[in-house]
Amino acid sequence: MRDMLGREELIPVEKALQILFQHAPFQLPNEMLTPLEDAYGLVVSRDIISPEDLPGFGRSTVDGFAVRAADTFGATEGLPAYLKLVAEIAMGERPQCALHKGQCAKIATGGMLPEKADAVVMFEYSQRVEHDSIEVVRPVSPGENVIQAGEDATKGETILKRGHRLRPQDVGALAGVGLSEIWTYKKPRVAIIATGDEVVPAREPLRPGQVRDINSYTLAGLVSDAGGIAEKKGIFRDEYEIIKDTVRLSLMHSEIILITGGSSVGTKDVTARVINDVGSPGVLFHGVALKPGKPTIGGVAGSVPIFGLPGHPAAVHICFEVFVRPVLELQSGAGFDRFGRHRRTLRARVTRNIASSPGREEHIGVMIEDRNGEPWAVPMLGKSGLITTLTKADGTAIIPLTKSGVREGDYLEVILF
Amino acid sequence: MRDMLGREELIPVEKALQILFQHAPFQLPNEMLTPLEDAYGLVVSRDIISPEDLPGFGRSTVDGFAVRAADTFGATEGLPAYLKLVAEIAMGERPQCALHKGQCAKIATGGMLPEKADAVVMFEYSQRVEHDSIEVVRPVSPGENVIQAGEDATKGETILKRGHRLRPQDVGALAGVGLSEIWTYKKPRVAIIATGDEVVPAREPLRPGQVRDINSYTLAGLVSDAGGIAEKKGIFRDEYEIIKDTVRLSLMHSEIILITGGSSVGTKDVTARVINDVGSPGVLFHGVALKPGKPTIGGVAGSVPIFGLPGHPAAVHICFEVFVRPVLELQSGAGFDRFGRHRRTLRARVTRNIASSPGREEHIGVMIEDRNGEPWAVPMLGKSGLITTLTKADGTAIIPLTKSGVREGDYLEVILF
Repeated sequence: MRDMLGREELIPVEKALQILFQHAPFQLPNEMLTPLEDAYGLVVSRDIISPEDLPGFGRSTVDGFAVRAADTFGATEGLPAYLKLVAEIAMGERPQCALHKGQCAKIATGGMLPEKADAVVMFEYSQRVEHDSIEVVRPVSPGENVIQAGEDATKGETILKRGHRLRPQDVGALAGVGLSEIWTYKKPRVAIIATGDEVVPAREPLRPGQVRDINSYTLAGLVSDAGGIAEKKGIFRDEYEIIKDTVRLSLMHSEIILITGGSSVGTKDVTARVINDVGSPGVLFHGVALKPGKPTIGGVAGSVPIFGLPGHPAAVHICFEVFVRPVLELQSGAGFDRFGRHRRTLRARVTRNIASSPGREEHIGVMIEDRNGEPWAVPMLGKSGLITTLTKADGTAIIPLTKSGVREGDYLEVILF
Repeated sequence: MRDMLGREELIPVEKALQILFQHAPFQLPNEMLTPLEDAYGLVVSRDIISPEDLPGFGRSTVDGFAVRAADTFGATEGLPAYLKLVAEIAMGERPQCALHKGQCAKIATGGMLPEKADAVVMFEYSQRVEHDSIEVVRPVSPGENVIQAGEDATKGETILKRGHRLRPQDVGALAGVGLSEIWTYKKPRVAIIATGDEVVPAREPLRPGQVRDINSYTLAGLVSDAGGIAEKKGIFRDEYEIIKDTVRLSLMHSEIILITGGSSVGTKDVTARVINDVGSPGVLFHGVALKPGKPTIGGVAGSVPIFGLPGHPAAVHICFEVFVRPVLELQSGAGFDRFGRHRRTLRARVTRNIASSPGREEHIGVMIEDRNGEPWAVPMLGKSGLITTLTKADGTAIIPLTKSGVREGDYLEVILF
């Protein structure tokens, strides 16, 4: 976009994201009934209600003796409480009988409390005095060392909300309440379209002037890490009709479309024209105050977000993290990332001065180094087109829009790969 | 382990890990030749040498005019250098002829420099004066706006070292140098053995006193996230012979074995006896200054690490992160994690005072909350046996061994899930 004087006008990253998200909700993938074994990493599409109490009975959380707490009140080392040992509770079984006043039963962690028992005395605070009785040297309060029936999850309670992405412990909890299949969203399909007259497939021999397709490989991995299904569409010439046809086809099968530049002069305009022509509202922003990644195009066709990403491998990576990942997260049916734009971040001090132009957000590949237990970010200086800058880096450090650089020792936010 | 007076002696986490790692190298999985498409997340088993220069030719990093830098020396707005435009370089093709003194060629980002050209003038610093000549208003130095042949990777250079886990950008770089298959380690197989007389499979109806197998589901997800192949062996009774036979069988097919407790009183001893009896050196530590996770057992049989993990779901999760993940990383053929024990960490301030016993490291489930742009950790207080504590949490905060608690506003290290 250009201002009245014809100068290129760049919008800040936050503003670009905001414009993009004003067009949400985008098209969500369909739901499916998923076996619990296959649910890791998927997003829950309906609130999940616990079908039963967890645990289903009062359980001990320690190894010791189940007691009626009142029987232990006032017990001390000098004046212990004496209790009669009437049973040993077998794991996985219901205790045979209730506890009467002055009685106790040996119980292991996870064992089911007998009726009338309301607390457990740990072995450490008891002593066997005879075959069938014990001394308790410290009182327990009712409920101590016990998980009550339904304390973890109550029957009818919502245990996971729609939009939650299932982590290992969530799947464990669903197994715990006996759910063996659940409703989830399918993973969003992300079309990856490489363009560029100079770009050839990775396996082909190179002629002078040609380069191999790096971006499709990088993007496929990033998409899959972010919970999408990468669909590499191939490499296409920088021609309006060819790219438009490919994008049209992709619109029918994909929830997000990524077009990686083509770096020839006219390409960015071709991509923008295609995005405008395949559906409305079309291009939402073109040119971002971000380095690398300035020529990024963001748009929406119908309810499918489409991105025109720059051709530089390093820029593609950063644009993915900044723009595509949050959109993909939303397209997965998950809410916004609660940590904001970047999840895996680290605050680290920078090992040297870096100059930066105010008015653009700059992302610099860094290695993280441990110096006396504190993380330091070592900038990988090199041209932004170099791929190896990113293969050697542990993450990218961000120099905010408003800063004209950072000094050695300053704290920076680092997005970890 | 008990000291001379029979008191339980707990070893600090760092010491336990150190003892464990003294027995490395463990048994590595076999190598395989992997197509690049399938290599994401795998660990490289041999150094990878670049078979060619990347790029294979001098390339422009901007849109502009390829020049001989010396022709622009001294150029200013008032006294521009005049150059004759002799060619337009097509993307993906070798320029037809070399540049002579005073000549330039139009070039796009990624285009191949003509012979004798050594820099590129950006469009912004030039003006077309006639059909076939331009003015340059700012000098460029030799090499400016150019990536030299081999500048990104040189033929014969080691681009990735053995032990590197392949991230999306690494796979992209390998595509860039034309490698279509590479040697990697197979993923380590991790046997998951659930024990406990009270534990039943997730799909079965419960009788009083029984609970469902949560830990196998949680561990399978954690193993897979950490780059291993989870092999759920099933649920076994707390009996020495049964568990020993299962562990013996697993030793033949797995690179790591996890036994989750069984919480009945005798179980921990059964697990320890089994670990001692299936191979040497057997149990290396039994009881750790860690909460939750105190009863953790770590051992090695031959060259296979075996862990006895507690039965509490929350404890299992934390013991995995603390002990199993670093060992799994090593078993994958990757070196130690360069960020130390925990990779995805965040420094956050704690929202309330928490008491803790000095002499043990305490891990507390926390939610991360954004307060004026700063991350705060909200402790999820609840009994450590509760599963839902971890399903609601974003990570666990660590109270170090030496501290007797933290105050509101103190900084804590949080391991993000």
